[in-house]
Amino acid sequence: MNKVITLANRPVGEPSLSDFHVETEEMPSPADRELLLKSIYVSVDPYMRGRMNDAESYIPPFELDRPIEGGIVAEVIESKNPNFDEGDFVVGRLDWKQYQVVANGEDLRKVDADAAPLSAYLGILGMTGLTAYLGLSEIGKPKEGETLVVSGAAGAVGSVVGQIGKIKGCRVVGIAGSDEKVGLLQSKFGFDAGINYKTTDDMASAVAEKCPGGVDVYFDNVAGEISDGVHRNMNRFGRIVNCGAIALYNATSVPTGPRVEPMLIKKSLLMQGFIVGNYEHQFSEAVNQLARWLNEGKLEFSETVVKGFENIPQAFLDLFEGANKGKMVVKV
Amino acid sequence: MNKVITLANRPVGEPSLSDFHVETEEMPSPADRELLLKSIYVSVDPYMRGRMNDAESYIPPFELDRPIEGGIVAEVIESKNPNFDEGDFVVGRLDWKQYQVVANGEDLRKVDADAAPLSAYLGILGMTGLTAYLGLSEIGKPKEGETLVVSGAAGAVGSVVGQIGKIKGCRVVGIAGSDEKVGLLQSKFGFDAGINYKTTDDMASAVAEKCPGGVDVYFDNVAGEISDGVHRNMNRFGRIVNCGAIALYNATSVPTGPRVEPMLIKKSLLMQGFIVGNYEHQFSEAVNQLARWLNEGKLEFSETVVKGFENIPQAFLDLFEGANKGKMVVKV
Repeated sequence: MNKVITLANRPVGEPSLSDFHVETEEMPSPADRELLLKSIYVSVDPYMRGRMNDAESYIPPFELDRPIEGGIVAEVIESKNPNFDEGDFVVGRLDWKQYQVVANGEDLRKVDADAAPLSAYLGILGMTGLTAYLGLSEIGKPKEGETLVVSGAAGAVGSVVGQIGKIKGCRVVGIAGSDEKVGLLQSKFGFDAGINYKTTDDMASAVAEKCPGGVDVYFDNVAGEISDGVHRNMNRFGRIVNCGAIALYNATSVPTGPRVEPMLIKKSLLMQGFIVGNYEHQFSEAVNQLARWLNEGKLEFSETVVKGFENIPQAFLDLFEGANKGKMVVKV
Repeated sequence: MNKVITLANRPVGEPSLSDFHVETEEMPSPADRELLLKSIYVSVDPYMRGRMNDAESYIPPFELDRPIEGGIVAEVIESKNPNFDEGDFVVGRLDWKQYQVVANGEDLRKVDADAAPLSAYLGILGMTGLTAYLGLSEIGKPKEGETLVVSGAAGAVGSVVGQIGKIKGCRVVGIAGSDEKVGLLQSKFGFDAGINYKTTDDMASAVAEKCPGGVDVYFDNVAGEISDGVHRNMNRFGRIVNCGAIALYNATSVPTGPRVEPMLIKKSLLMQGFIVGNYEHQFSEAVNQLARWLNEGKLEFSETVVKGFENIPQAFLDLFEGANKGKMVVKV
């Protein structure tokens, strides 16, 4: 029998295990031009929380009682399509299923298991690497000598953003949720400084201390009060990349905070929402650049690997507790 | 004797007449290379409220007990500078004085009293016209067929923004504070529709009704709750030009409202603060374009002219009551 994880309820506020359902079904079998895939690594990402709401967004909501879908690296087990062979590895947006059949593989990308660990294609060479690279370069536009602040800095996207900032010649300061993570930012990822927001009362002062020349680019994965403190340190003509708002995703009413318009005007600031899917035409160029840096030893990545298909929902929930260092993936 | 208006107090919240002081001084007299100027029209503008606070901004605060400065059209009464003749008209940032001497006129621009009414050089051919044109074109980037919403639409900047939007082929909806103003938007300035925010309970629904295709560009002069209602109607890839925040300028504590990050991300929106001074290198091209449209009859402008030097402070205060239609100027 095959295992499938479906969305059992639309969570209100913080999601819980009861919002997911592990079901069994008959093993699928491919017809002409179809492929049978076996999931190897499953990606869990904060943005998926948004798809659990029944709300209009850039991507349709998950359907109730249907499999959840997300980034998955899979192996081709059986191919009735001339473009794919058994044993090929592919990455794409697939269902949370142990095994699944896809129509023709047109939306899948083949990946090379020898060039990088397979899980990297969900991380630094996948959507998270692309998000970091394209969000920073297309909106943040960091210039040599500028100061870059990254929130969620020890997370999958944040740790890559900071390293690219260093490659671009910026002073890079990361905000994370434990002293251990802050240590890692500096020792492993080469950040110039870090701030543990959980032990910081006054974020604005903490950012001012670590960024004596102010902040030129803020790559924001969290929003909320952490960001309020960074905003107060923005320099004129600063750029704020709104990549994520994990601090607000589980809110049950509209979160309020300081109105930003007076600050945007006074300092001629730009704030722009970033969604990696808008930049699809730049993916292959970006992946090539990331792979080059990776091979040159200029990029480190870390991942938290959880084992077992049934543990996917718990791994997803753990994202909101900051339990992961770097990219969170589940090895099926 | 010469008359001068100084800043007597830094207002807390709403400014009042007692924050200004009308003083007298000896008539000034020009030395070598200097000019003696007589003020003809004095501009009062909402942004000046910010300069009354002792706070860091893009422009230094006014000094206490010193003359307030702003946009003024003046006549050269006496010239000891070969670049200027008696009878020349000039525009520039000058002190609120009936007469004043300037060092060399380097920061002044000569204007042609025959080409347009002199007050126009403070309005449609001055900073307000430049603000409308450059803010809309550089940040709003309206495309034919898109929907443009303008707040403060009957004001100096807003009425020009809407007309340029029409020239660019947009559907244009204006928000203003009386039925009379809303009528004017449509009858005089060619807006497609208008909303009187003072008689509207639910701005989001009102905007939705007038903008059935959503909002692509929002040129925001006001911020606050009016803007909350517009934001909810923004289309994907929308642009919000943060040009003013008059609803917040007199706030005595940090105004709060819905956090914008989730919306910016979901809809891939851009919000950017606009200050006309950042675009000085484009001024002459922009003034030429505005003058061309004006001569072709494609741009209407309205102004509220208050008479008498001593009435400058009251005219400034009236801006916050929405007493003006179009550009507010004082004829000295």
